[in-house]
Amino acid sequence: MQPPLQRFLTECHSRFADDHSGAVADYIPELSKADPALFGIGLCTTDGYVYEAGDSAVPFTIQSISKAFVFALALETRGAEAVESKIGVEPSGEAFNSIRLTADNKPFNPMVNAGAIACSGLIREAAGADSFDLIQSTLGRFAGRTLDVDEAVYYSESATGHRNRAIAWMLHNHGVVKADVDGVLDIYFRQCAVLVTARDIAVMAATLANSGINPVTGEAVVSPYAAARTLSVMTSSGMYDYAGEWIYRVGIPAKSGVGGGIAAALPAQLGLGVFSPPLDDHGNTVRGLKVCEALSSHFNLHVLSRTDDVRSCVIADYDIASVTSRRSRQPQERQIILENHSETRVVELVGALTFATIEYVSRRVTTGLTPDQLVILDFRRVPMITAAGARLLGEVLGDLIAAGATPILAGLSDTSPVYQTLAPRLADISRLRKFPALDDAVEWAEDQVIYRYGGFVRVNDPTPLDAQALLTGMSPEEIAELSSIAFVRQYAAGERIIRAGDPSESVFFLQSGMVSVKLPSGVRLASMVPGMEFGEMALLGSPRSADVWADTAVQCLELPLSGYDLLRQQRPQAGEQIMRNLAALLARRLLQTNAKVDLLRNS
Amino acid sequence: MQPPLQRFLTECHSRFADDHSGAVADYIPELSKADPALFGIGLCTTDGYVYEAGDSAVPFTIQSISKAFVFALALETRGAEAVESKIGVEPSGEAFNSIRLTADNKPFNPMVNAGAIACSGLIREAAGADSFDLIQSTLGRFAGRTLDVDEAVYYSESATGHRNRAIAWMLHNHGVVKADVDGVLDIYFRQCAVLVTARDIAVMAATLANSGINPVTGEAVVSPYAAARTLSVMTSSGMYDYAGEWIYRVGIPAKSGVGGGIAAALPAQLGLGVFSPPLDDHGNTVRGLKVCEALSSHFNLHVLSRTDDVRSCVIADYDIASVTSRRSRQPQERQIILENHSETRVVELVGALTFATIEYVSRRVTTGLTPDQLVILDFRRVPMITAAGARLLGEVLGDLIAAGATPILAGLSDTSPVYQTLAPRLADISRLRKFPALDDAVEWAEDQVIYRYGGFVRVNDPTPLDAQALLTGMSPEEIAELSSIAFVRQYAAGERIIRAGDPSESVFFLQSGMVSVKLPSGVRLASMVPGMEFGEMALLGSPRSADVWADTAVQCLELPLSGYDLLRQQRPQAGEQIMRNLAALLARRLLQTNAKVDLLRNS
Repeated sequence: MQPPLQRFLTECHSRFADDHSGAVADYIPELSKADPALFGIGLCTTDGYVYEAGDSAVPFTIQSISKAFVFALALETRGAEAVESKIGVEPSGEAFNSIRLTADNKPFNPMVNAGAIACSGLIREAAGADSFDLIQSTLGRFAGRTLDVDEAVYYSESATGHRNRAIAWMLHNHGVVKADVDGVLDIYFRQCAVLVTARDIAVMAATLANSGINPVTGEAVVSPYAAARTLSVMTSSGMYDYAGEWIYRVGIPAKSGVGGGIAAALPAQLGLGVFSPPLDDHGNTVRGLKVCEALSSHFNLHVLSRTDDVRSCVIADYDIASVTSRRSRQPQERQIILENHSETRVVELVGALTFATIEYVSRRVTTGLTPDQLVILDFRRVPMITAAGARLLGEVLGDLIAAGATPILAGLSDTSPVYQTLAPRLADISRLRKFPALDDAVEWAEDQVIYRYGGFVRVNDPTPLDAQALLTGMSPEEIAELSSIAFVRQYAAGERIIRAGDPSESVFFLQSGMVSVKLPSGVRLASMVPGMEFGEMALLGSPRSADVWADTAVQCLELPLSGYDLLRQQRPQAGEQIMRNLAALLARRLLQTNAKVDLLRNS
Repeated sequence: MQPPLQRFLTECHSRFADDHSGAVADYIPELSKADPALFGIGLCTTDGYVYEAGDSAVPFTIQSISKAFVFALALETRGAEAVESKIGVEPSGEAFNSIRLTADNKPFNPMVNAGAIACSGLIREAAGADSFDLIQSTLGRFAGRTLDVDEAVYYSESATGHRNRAIAWMLHNHGVVKADVDGVLDIYFRQCAVLVTARDIAVMAATLANSGINPVTGEAVVSPYAAARTLSVMTSSGMYDYAGEWIYRVGIPAKSGVGGGIAAALPAQLGLGVFSPPLDDHGNTVRGLKVCEALSSHFNLHVLSRTDDVRSCVIADYDIASVTSRRSRQPQERQIILENHSETRVVELVGALTFATIEYVSRRVTTGLTPDQLVILDFRRVPMITAAGARLLGEVLGDLIAAGATPILAGLSDTSPVYQTLAPRLADISRLRKFPALDDAVEWAEDQVIYRYGGFVRVNDPTPLDAQALLTGMSPEEIAELSSIAFVRQYAAGERIIRAGDPSESVFFLQSGMVSVKLPSGVRLASMVPGMEFGEMALLGSPRSADVWADTAVQCLELPLSGYDLLRQQRPQAGEQIMRNLAALLARRLLQTNAKVDLLRNS
């Protein structure tokens, strides 16, 4: 099955291929040679998938489309202040090649020739003789491949570009282009002659739509600031005197070129690139506009049509009464947790977090907040957070601490993209805990609650066998008999007691210390304290399904199955009692696990 | 703890209250009386929470802010075609009260006086004498309360509004305003004198940001089309000759009025309303601009800064090998499911679905698609889908069917908002199944697979006791003894066999027919076929935790606990075997449930 968007683009291509209106640019001979039948479409999603239709691999000169990307580069190279003081951002209401400047002698915006030449000049001041190499390699990083120059078009543009020479000297007159006017013009003429394909400009546009990160290569080409500001000038000035109509009817920031290309970028959604040489009276590619319009109207796409619901960012919200960590607890510890469960709060988040979603989370955690509350925010399902969201979240965390609460971040490692964005906002926040696994965060929060209300059960005195959960209800004689066939085992902290995959030949009763049941991958399934058994599935004939490690120095009794089988033949009622205890234990675990499933599925 | 946004707005308020620059509008005496110290801020989120600071409840006249909302009303009342043929959408490059029209004699856009008067005229043509009532009540629906008119300001505007009279007659001359020029002007003057507060315009702006649905009242005031197009003209023309700068620096569509108000709308995020009478040279409220700029720069908000990750919309993706429905299956049925599990696919979605996320889903289901595959899309955690997303999803479903697959929608009822949006796109699709509960969808898909590969086990011959899972491994004598103390029970379809909360005094063995275990709320926990037991937790002394209903005519054996206790005392080894079977059964359920938790938590 073809994805429907592929079919849509293929249909668009065959429908508009029959439209022969418009004329190929002829102001230089090289451009007039273009085949008017050429028609290619590329569309790149923000997860880096590229759709193509028609002549999407045919190279053509980028021309004015370069203005948008070189403006972004100027912002990156020179900083916002230097660029914005030299070049305006208002629509000019004039032709793209007007020599008129604003009242304070600046180009109106970077999308007209004067503004674009000023950008080249700003880059020239910083990069000197390497300026064009920098521009060419940056356009290549936007496209995700090395781009060439059409030397014939470059010579032709340079030989006939007298109006641009006039503009450049006028900018020099007003101090906008500082020095080497010819050099700056040469950079500009070369930049317009860079060869791209429809696929290339789709990826380039998708990079702007994806906050400056090329979604195919993963490279951060420009900052989110530069990407958003470039989209801004494309919105207000990208389509010359057609800008208002364009944002109203199509609603996708775009930039076209006389080579027949158009790049359109829908933030966080897609980049579109179309190539078809015939141009309309405004100098825009006729078939390119039609593809943009069809995509926007067929799918009702519009940059200002957004309908997310902030509430969907919280996928679960509970306390440790409903969900506990995988550390098994002594009955008195469990009691403390149950009585004080509201001193913890777990909020599991999902999706990309924005200003609006964090604002919602800030109100949600404020409601029901108590002094001393432990508030766990879980980020496992959060692939990213915006700069705005990170800033607001930093403030929320600071406020929680000021209110006496203990915020805890779960599901974040030092290298996760979310944490990288968040880290600068956390610098001033002390007492902030972070755990890669939610389970560890919940366990830590439980520990805090247990500490507050009576502390931990001592784990160093060997627990007698009759206090083991699996042996509940057995007579002293039965206990004595079990003891007589079991072996005392001691392990050092860090030692492996059970290995996954081994045959199960015994059951262990933990008498002192702590052990953890872990998958070979290191994921902890459960932890045990004295009075609990492990390896007990051996009683049902199951092989060892996980490793068991000693967390501390450990003493336990190992009951071999061979001895146990003798016992249960001699004392079948004891055997039945042990099986009953095992079933009860499994039933309790099942109840807890079902509660967790319901919480995850229905919240 | 105050939410941080409240603190930010309070701080903004106290910081900018000290800025005394600008001058109160004085072109009519009534406006010049305004207290320049007044300063109110409102901010409304798209889930309907309203923040306020300062004089947020002080009424003032809406003035030009009304232009945006009345344009939306004109689109609603007259349709896009009628409005867009009379009024342009290009920035004018002229003052707001210019009498100049476009080359084809239309107002440049609806944000200048000429365009706003033309809107009033279009509404006048449709609503006649009720026009102003319609405008006043619509502004009230945007604000979520009944709004009054400041009669003194209205008289004053009407008495001095000669330039607007000239504009109206010029529009009449060109056929834009058709008849009753004085009546249209009266509507316009009254509309400018409607009294609002900063809180009101925050809610009004949030309604535009929320696709036309008032987030406080929940009312759909205008269509998503009208809301998006109104935001478009606010973007291109809302701030007069400051529009390019505004979208570049602040990036939030906005409209101000000489009464000292400004409304700013960030799609899907928030609406902001500020009131402060002193105006700058452009006629914009000084403190209002500062609040917009501070909000945008402090939190890095910008309409073109978006960084969602489409991949986060799929929260789980699996087949029935890993997760089965709650209907228990006979061993041979289970075998069929295990062998053919890849003929099913479950994709659980989360969050608001857009064009971009559905496009990603379309590629994801295409990958690994096999002929005859049953593809379940689960919408339980999807609060909404955009029009663009719905259209694309309709195409995906049609394509799946064309490819021979069977798409199944889960988590959707006829009344859910997502289904309402989707329904028109499903009209042409036959063979499409929809289930309110995912579990029912999975069960139906399992049934299809079982049908394909050998059909169902016949359920009408009574299953002998030695085929019951709980009695595995028992001797013929033990089975005979159990039979002798059990009672044959028969139930009609729809009859309740076990009632939640009752004491547990027996275990049931299903011999023919089917039963379902349900919560009192109707949620199904499990279904049983012959050869399975129910009420078996009675063996552990637990009370009945759920109802059990006969789905069909049912025959079962009921084993009273009193009889069983006698049996296990006489035959303790049989008792141990039953407990062992029960433990094994619970262990298997626990394994399945743990797999589901891992899938839900880690995907």
